[in-house]
Amino acid sequence: MVERVLDRYRERTVEALLRHIPEQSPPYLYELAADYPGRPCKGLRAALCLATCVAFGGDPARALNPAVTVELFHNAFLIHDDIQDGSELRRGEPTLPAAYGVEVALNVGNATNLLGLQRLMANRRELGGELAWRLFEETELMCRQSLEGQALEIAWIRDNACGLVPGDYYRMCLKKTSWYTFLYPCRTGLLVAEGAATEANRLDRFGWYLGAAFQIQDDVLNLAGTEADYGKEIAGDLWEGKRTLMLIHLLERCTTAERVRIVRYLSRTRAQRGPDAAEDVQWLLDRLAAYDCVESARQAAAGLVEAAEREIDRVLGAVDDEGGQEADEAREFLFALPGFVVERGR
Amino acid sequence: MVERVLDRYRERTVEALLRHIPEQSPPYLYELAADYPGRPCKGLRAALCLATCVAFGGDPARALNPAVTVELFHNAFLIHDDIQDGSELRRGEPTLPAAYGVEVALNVGNATNLLGLQRLMANRRELGGELAWRLFEETELMCRQSLEGQALEIAWIRDNACGLVPGDYYRMCLKKTSWYTFLYPCRTGLLVAEGAATEANRLDRFGWYLGAAFQIQDDVLNLAGTEADYGKEIAGDLWEGKRTLMLIHLLERCTTAERVRIVRYLSRTRAQRGPDAAEDVQWLLDRLAAYDCVESARQAAAGLVEAAEREIDRVLGAVDDEGGQEADEAREFLFALPGFVVERGR
Repeated sequence: MVERVLDRYRERTVEALLRHIPEQSPPYLYELAADYPGRPCKGLRAALCLATCVAFGGDPARALNPAVTVELFHNAFLIHDDIQDGSELRRGEPTLPAAYGVEVALNVGNATNLLGLQRLMANRRELGGELAWRLFEETELMCRQSLEGQALEIAWIRDNACGLVPGDYYRMCLKKTSWYTFLYPCRTGLLVAEGAATEANRLDRFGWYLGAAFQIQDDVLNLAGTEADYGKEIAGDLWEGKRTLMLIHLLERCTTAERVRIVRYLSRTRAQRGPDAAEDVQWLLDRLAAYDCVESARQAAAGLVEAAEREIDRVLGAVDDEGGQEADEAREFLFALPGFVVERGR
Repeated sequence: MVERVLDRYRERTVEALLRHIPEQSPPYLYELAADYPGRPCKGLRAALCLATCVAFGGDPARALNPAVTVELFHNAFLIHDDIQDGSELRRGEPTLPAAYGVEVALNVGNATNLLGLQRLMANRRELGGELAWRLFEETELMCRQSLEGQALEIAWIRDNACGLVPGDYYRMCLKKTSWYTFLYPCRTGLLVAEGAATEANRLDRFGWYLGAAFQIQDDVLNLAGTEADYGKEIAGDLWEGKRTLMLIHLLERCTTAERVRIVRYLSRTRAQRGPDAAEDVQWLLDRLAAYDCVESARQAAAGLVEAAEREIDRVLGAVDDEGGQEADEAREFLFALPGFVVERGR
């Protein structure tokens, strides 16, 4: 069921998204802004926005433009991310910076953000000035949260933070992942369904739990998945020195001698590491397994899924069961999403 | 006089800009967004916005926020530009990517754009909803023009365009340089002075001529200036293969044998060029001098300055000479700006 709803909403959203990409384009600009959105993906954020709107009694046609908007900002993040991480693969194909260089990719990322801005402006005509302005405010907040979360993660790597506790990770996660992937789509879906004056934060806890579970699962897949499943470089997070929940657990659990080796490994950039780096990464994978770090991350994700299910139950319990079959299905989708997110292959 | 007005408006703008940079910041984010704006600069775009507002009878206090906005977007462009060009120096100091790496610099560029967006939202309270929305529209248009102009320039380098004519350069210039440096500040200044319904495009020709003169002069300084004057790497444009008016003239004027050498040089990226690259660049500088390309670019800039002076004369001729001393001075500033732009040391 979740996959059917995802497919339907993704199809609608991608179709609308591609319709708004200008045909007149200088080379290597808008045509490439259509690249990532056209690759196979779940369209999770768009579907969440549309399903939330429908579940709370709104008209999905009115939420289509906000759904396109979140996908555009998401794809712009991905492009900039791929530049920052020097990633090679995205959704199973070469990243834009790998294929076209940083110069072109940075412009395409900015063009994608600009297309998102254009969609926000189009809301004024489609949804009225008051709601359009509220959606602008939500978008500014979402961009701010994402940017601050990412800055935090980068600063940890740069300053070689080795004394982090799980709470630090969860706070970073809320900003970097949960906000734009879950809170923002839920908030904009609620706003379209109920109007500019509604309490748009009612699904924040749901989105926060779900986002943390999603990010932990993403981190687990990065280490334990296969490249075909995951669509990205395997153990890339270890190569980049990302502070995942698993790495934080490992630093808490390992011996002093092991800690010295981990800290020394993390203190070096990818370029600074010698030819033994692959051996170090393999050793880290072994240690993560030896201390059950992957397993305890999986358990943390499972606990967060349960918490998200309790939350959506609570919030949807206060909603009238009206709106016919599509609304029933959308509510079912929201209930099932936490479990789906953690079982996903990629 | 021009410098006195620039100084005064820059001081006001930078002070307001820095006041809006959040104090609470993850490391390497907002604190670094204050870096470029705090370096010595002319503050040309902010001054033009404020002076236009005042010259057309507006209150400069109301144009301060739009002036801060254009400086923020300008600084975000500079940061992204420095990433794309791999530049080492900006305003006489190391660029952000040179000092902190691409990962941090890209985030700081995005944070600077976000601060610009926040200023646009603040207009609603300060200037009312209608004018705030018009300024959003102008900003979207400006970002679009800049991005498309830059994409065009990048595509020319990437596809090794060697058959360009001066008209191509001028069209690129209008989009890449004139729009955000001159047309946008004039348009926003007019909008604040005269309201959302005014014809905000009355200074477009002025801005276009001025922008082309400004960019040509910038290209000339890049080749003929000294590093101390220019604050950037000398002959960097030749290293990057930028299609300047001078290079286009050279390709039109040189012998077939010279053309072959130029096209071969341009076909290679900086990384692909061998140890003879510095020799090639020196040879290009000699050829540019031999064919009077620098001199004819200077003459083209001088012609554009005259055209800009005629334009501002025409438009300001239709304005009442009211508003007291500050308005008189602002009009004088607009008259004198074209000459100043081309005589500037940097």
